[in-house]
Amino acid sequence: MASVLRTSAHIRAAVRTKRSFSTYHALRASTAASASSKAPTERAYFTNEPSGPSIKTAIPGPKSQQKIAELNQVFDTRALNMLVDYSSSVGNYYAQIASIPVGYNNPNLLEATKSPEMASALINRPALGNFPGQDWAHILESGLLRVAPKGMNQVFTSTTGSDANETAYKAAFMYHAQQKRGGPEVEFTKDEISSTMSNQSPGSPNYSIMSFESAFHGRLFGSLSTTRSKPIHKLDIPAFDWPKAPFPSLKYPLEDFASENAQEEQRCLQEAERIIKEFHNPVTAVVVEPVQSEGGDNHASPAFFQGLREITKRHNVLLIVDEVQTGLGATGKFWAHDHWNLQTPPDIVTFSKKAQAAGYYYGNPALRPNKPYRQFNTWMGDPARALIFRAILQEIERLNLVENTAATGDYLFSGLERLAKQYPGQFQNLRGKGQGTFIAWDSPQRDAILKKGKQVGINIGGCGETAVRLRPMLIFQQHHADILLENLEKIVKS
Amino acid sequence: MASVLRTSAHIRAAVRTKRSFSTYHALRASTAASASSKAPTERAYFTNEPSGPSIKTAIPGPKSQQKIAELNQVFDTRALNMLVDYSSSVGNYYAQIASIPVGYNNPNLLEATKSPEMASALINRPALGNFPGQDWAHILESGLLRVAPKGMNQVFTSTTGSDANETAYKAAFMYHAQQKRGGPEVEFTKDEISSTMSNQSPGSPNYSIMSFESAFHGRLFGSLSTTRSKPIHKLDIPAFDWPKAPFPSLKYPLEDFASENAQEEQRCLQEAERIIKEFHNPVTAVVVEPVQSEGGDNHASPAFFQGLREITKRHNVLLIVDEVQTGLGATGKFWAHDHWNLQTPPDIVTFSKKAQAAGYYYGNPALRPNKPYRQFNTWMGDPARALIFRAILQEIERLNLVENTAATGDYLFSGLERLAKQYPGQFQNLRGKGQGTFIAWDSPQRDAILKKGKQVGINIGGCGETAVRLRPMLIFQQHHADILLENLEKIVKS
Repeated sequence: MASVLRTSAHIRAAVRTKRSFSTYHALRASTAASASSKAPTERAYFTNEPSGPSIKTAIPGPKSQQKIAELNQVFDTRALNMLVDYSSSVGNYYAQIASIPVGYNNPNLLEATKSPEMASALINRPALGNFPGQDWAHILESGLLRVAPKGMNQVFTSTTGSDANETAYKAAFMYHAQQKRGGPEVEFTKDEISSTMSNQSPGSPNYSIMSFESAFHGRLFGSLSTTRSKPIHKLDIPAFDWPKAPFPSLKYPLEDFASENAQEEQRCLQEAERIIKEFHNPVTAVVVEPVQSEGGDNHASPAFFQGLREITKRHNVLLIVDEVQTGLGATGKFWAHDHWNLQTPPDIVTFSKKAQAAGYYYGNPALRPNKPYRQFNTWMGDPARALIFRAILQEIERLNLVENTAATGDYLFSGLERLAKQYPGQFQNLRGKGQGTFIAWDSPQRDAILKKGKQVGINIGGCGETAVRLRPMLIFQQHHADILLENLEKIVKS
Repeated sequence: MASVLRTSAHIRAAVRTKRSFSTYHALRASTAASASSKAPTERAYFTNEPSGPSIKTAIPGPKSQQKIAELNQVFDTRALNMLVDYSSSVGNYYAQIASIPVGYNNPNLLEATKSPEMASALINRPALGNFPGQDWAHILESGLLRVAPKGMNQVFTSTTGSDANETAYKAAFMYHAQQKRGGPEVEFTKDEISSTMSNQSPGSPNYSIMSFESAFHGRLFGSLSTTRSKPIHKLDIPAFDWPKAPFPSLKYPLEDFASENAQEEQRCLQEAERIIKEFHNPVTAVVVEPVQSEGGDNHASPAFFQGLREITKRHNVLLIVDEVQTGLGATGKFWAHDHWNLQTPPDIVTFSKKAQAAGYYYGNPALRPNKPYRQFNTWMGDPARALIFRAILQEIERLNLVENTAATGDYLFSGLERLAKQYPGQFQNLRGKGQGTFIAWDSPQRDAILKKGKQVGINIGGCGETAVRLRPMLIFQQHHADILLENLEKIVKS
């Protein structure tokens, strides 16, 4: 079992102190003196990858403590997990908040930072709506748009997931109002123009976005009104009177509860449709995560999402799929909604996190508002981040990382099934089968397990009330899964 | 008068085609064959600066048209002003949307892009709330915090002006609720916790932010609810029922209307106080721009802002100063509110645009919410942009650019006063005296003037209904002001 400390471990962080005299935490595993007892069966992506994590001090170490105290004078550090020495971090599987895809100090990303176009993007940052660079179409076409979801060929770029979702909501509201008005040529009324300046209807209508219980879509005012994961995110902040539908609560293992789960999904779809038909503030769009992440890693079947697409189509309500956390391969397909086999694509798909850039894709040209400056802001994203996105895509393709994640995820899931059989109380509701490494389970000692993991150099996160969730990078391989499994067993045994 | 074409012109853009065979627009003036008839009296900041603008094709030229059509397939281009070749742009005074401070391809900014810490910030982007780099305190202290407004020593970093304002509003709401609740130790009630999950009060209270008529504070849902500049920004988007107060409508020249203007400001303050006392959704904060920018370059006197500070203090309402457009020296002081000589500082100051990074400053430690994860998001800004901010500050200091802007602004204002005497119909309500280059006037032919300017290589913007507004970079010098003045006279004469 000691071997778990020798090979580069899982998942959220292999932690070690930078040098013997320093205690900032570098996100790399150490090159332990002893060789691993289990030789990797596949080629490691990073040859300079240490063979395992080693912990030199408690976390935070004395130097970190001092630095954190200093930082806390000027910047709130109460959510701080660890202070990191990124310059000494390499490869590794800790992905921040599911937001790092291809390893720390990835050499090909480093190369992309050295290009003249990156320098220009950094120092000549354009207001992309007014003054795009002459290479902006090329940057989009060779990057973001190359992976546009099926049925989508246009993009609105933004800066964060919240921003992506909120601009998508704005697009939905303008589209709905335009339809109601009778088309893009119909002018605003005098009453609309004057009332909107006082934030009143009809100019500022009481339209709504429907989201689901336990959903997370961001923390600004519109996105927070669709977020339903935890009270602490929402308390004391004014919210729009928008509706929420129940999200299916499935029982595991799925194969043992097939008809019960199908009924549960049907119940949720019926309730969703009822709300769309009856809610007092007209529902213009439904926003949904392919896997509710912050809310507890709640999954639903392709049939559920197909049903949701059918209902939204029938009621002329837009379907916005929030792929901020699920996008870019983590579920074993590039977009998680690729798992659904929809007959007609979603209307809008939002992205951020692993993309490093953010925004929303769409296909229907009528989702461009009928006049300029309606969907607009000063920067409309950041071309420096769009260039990083492109480099990430090249790395994903070069290493077949979506396929890797699908295969590693299957391998890891099998191992977790074994553990769940052996320690059923510790691995409840194991979920995410066939969903790449987007795997979670519930544990009554969740917080204790996360804490112990960190002590042995494995940084895992939680979500919802009791879920342990895995969010490794796309470079997570089978030999890392072995280490994780061995470590997990050690932890639950203790 | 031909000399205006020989020296590097004003303001928003000196435009020329890149090479004889290319028609992308590079933001630099040409090195015209003929020498300037008017030698610059001060040292030019950029020795490779061309001596004046030259226009080779109409804008957009044929190549640009083709590129724009291509871009339009995937990205809305209807707000596009011009397509730019940034790689060939140098120095220049066109500042995008008041968002470029120290020149295109500024060599010292370029240097900053080459540092290992910039590369790390780009490829190892941290979730700053959870996993800041060990150098994050240093980056803040040597950059953003070095120019923190008087009375402020803490920062919350974000990505855009809208984001900065909205997180500031959230801080204000949490602070207000905490005070009402009886302090940071008082726990949330059961009722608050359950109601907020349905977006209802008391957990999601009907608190409000008061803004001013014609204000612009951003375009996301919370910020847009405080934006009151133009209907096109707001139509069809749901808004919070928040109040607006009248902003003073001053008469110019100020010295001729001193008592009338003082009365007008008094009227607005009285109405602001009445709303704070009476509005049905309790006002927790007032947000105000030092100069209403998008709304028409509307100024008010220091006495007005002193009065606003006094009223907000007296009613225990926070004062948020939105320096997104005015910050970083454009008004001849680093922060525009430095002109006000307040006895107690604002509670929160927001920044973005010229800073390239965004966020809000504060001083009162109680503005940190009482628990972690209440003011939080995945990235909480971008350290790459914080590093650019630091390089910009170094450049501002090296070249004394705040002082330059104050002096150039005074010089330019005098010249405009001369023009206004000569062409009173074309230069109405000239304003911004003593406010650096933050200068504007009204013109009945505003749009025609902006169009003509562009044709001679001078890119100026408008704001409000009829205002021509100047927003040069901080590197705008007296010899550029000469060129601008000559060109403006030529335009209004024609």
